[in-house]
Amino acid sequence: MQITFLGTSSGVPTRSRNVSSIAMRLPQRAEVWLFDCGEGTQHQIMRSDVRASQITKIFITHMHGDHIFGLMGLLASCGLAGDVKHIDIYGPPGLNDYLNACQRYSETRLAYSVKVHAVKQGLVFANDEFEVTCAPLKHRVTAHGFRVTEKDRPGRFDIDKAKALDIPPGPIYAQLKRGETVTLDDGRRIDGKEFCGSPIIGRKFVYCTDTIYCDKAVALAKDADVLIHEATFAHQDAELAIQRLHSTSTMAAQVALNAGVKDLIMTHFSPRYAPTNAITLEDLLTEARMIFANTHLAYDFMTFEVGSSLKK
Amino acid sequence: MQITFLGTSSGVPTRSRNVSSIAMRLPQRAEVWLFDCGEGTQHQIMRSDVRASQITKIFITHMHGDHIFGLMGLLASCGLAGDVKHIDIYGPPGLNDYLNACQRYSETRLAYSVKVHAVKQGLVFANDEFEVTCAPLKHRVTAHGFRVTEKDRPGRFDIDKAKALDIPPGPIYAQLKRGETVTLDDGRRIDGKEFCGSPIIGRKFVYCTDTIYCDKAVALAKDADVLIHEATFAHQDAELAIQRLHSTSTMAAQVALNAGVKDLIMTHFSPRYAPTNAITLEDLLTEARMIFANTHLAYDFMTFEVGSSLKK
Repeated sequence: MQITFLGTSSGVPTRSRNVSSIAMRLPQRAEVWLFDCGEGTQHQIMRSDVRASQITKIFITHMHGDHIFGLMGLLASCGLAGDVKHIDIYGPPGLNDYLNACQRYSETRLAYSVKVHAVKQGLVFANDEFEVTCAPLKHRVTAHGFRVTEKDRPGRFDIDKAKALDIPPGPIYAQLKRGETVTLDDGRRIDGKEFCGSPIIGRKFVYCTDTIYCDKAVALAKDADVLIHEATFAHQDAELAIQRLHSTSTMAAQVALNAGVKDLIMTHFSPRYAPTNAITLEDLLTEARMIFANTHLAYDFMTFEVGSSLKK
Repeated sequence: MQITFLGTSSGVPTRSRNVSSIAMRLPQRAEVWLFDCGEGTQHQIMRSDVRASQITKIFITHMHGDHIFGLMGLLASCGLAGDVKHIDIYGPPGLNDYLNACQRYSETRLAYSVKVHAVKQGLVFANDEFEVTCAPLKHRVTAHGFRVTEKDRPGRFDIDKAKALDIPPGPIYAQLKRGETVTLDDGRRIDGKEFCGSPIIGRKFVYCTDTIYCDKAVALAKDADVLIHEATFAHQDAELAIQRLHSTSTMAAQVALNAGVKDLIMTHFSPRYAPTNAITLEDLLTEARMIFANTHLAYDFMTFEVGSSLKK
């Protein structure tokens, strides 16, 4: 689960930060999931190690332009690249109609199939390895945070111990690997759990934007390895955050603290905190770390492995 | 009339060329007109000397995504910048509905007014200094080429000659400057034309994309200083051009030749002609120059003054 930030600015792009998008590369497979798709996301992908042709799922938090205006261009380009078979898109109600309108007016015909799923609180998607859930956030329009949970895997099976006990190889081994109890032909009852190491706990990645501080974000982020949370404003601009239903650095940190996550990465910064201005992102970082020490600032093309510890 | 190319690739952006957009800075005023607005145009503007806040008019040739998917993002960003009062947009029928749909679904509220005008063949806009006309091109969807004509201005008024003849200064000078004949209080009839140098011929800039070779493009480009014409394909890929109703380099050159323009700049190149491929843009240039010598290749951020001679 490798995350790459493709855009970390709120509202408008700047020279160094594009508008929102995050790519997640799945482990051991050529598959990429995208979260949000602001204008210029396909350009950012082109400048990164992410391959657009590997995108299979796109999750959209909400319908504001800085999170969706790159979607049609990306879908059209994936079509021209010619190696995409199907893309599932998950987002708020209205997303399907928006994409249909864009396709109709621009006469864009995609050479692959797209299915748009309207999300509601709860389970969004699950397969053998992953589960994606979402929760409503608190913004001016319907917005959802997403949580990707890698399922726990059984611990390593001790094949030597099984052989030493003269357990005959075959389907029985598979049952034991799953931790089941089996009765052998010679009458012995064998508990699989005694042959398995501790289960490998799955990783958890949570993405919350756009939102002001809310309890649903805390619940969604519970015990996550990494929480990516918007921090549009500095603490001293809290009034703007409250007016516009965005988060301050300290709100993002409070969510991280209350949820007990390992690391918090703040993103979706207002362009007003450019390096030469009175308040800079370093101030936002300092403010957040007073509340939650393991806080980091996202930047465009920042890449990290979920589950590995982030450098401070 | 300074032209800056903001995107010169067709269909999809590449690492060195964005999708279509051209900015025109009007002489002696802080005003920019934009022609087409592919995704990422606002990003390109940010990297150029063009100022988004000076945009007053946007002309859209046709509704394909590589010409319009940057429009909503640009309009939204102009709104956040807060110094735009009004933008007129001229384009094909459908453009207004498309923009309304985008605004509705993304809940974008612009802090300034926008008026979308559906264009038909003929006059698009005129004021004291400029006239913009358009003509239908030949593409898979409704597409128009645009011609910007700077109006001819009277030649320089010879004030010394007027003074030498004891013509009293005042409103009479303005009449003479306009080339009118006036009768003085002393009974003398004075012909203003005798005090004016040759009229200053207005400059003419023509933009034709997307289209296969067509006579309407030739008529629109008649005697232009600069014709910017699409050349998606090389001559040896003419079959593709014919299938998709795009131009080859040689078709663009033929339009320039038949219209008697001073310079042709080719743009909207297929990404297949990248520098490391079998056919490159240098081949397209060579092909075009066999027909029309004053042909040039556009590149992103190329800037030139209409009316000044282009270096070969």
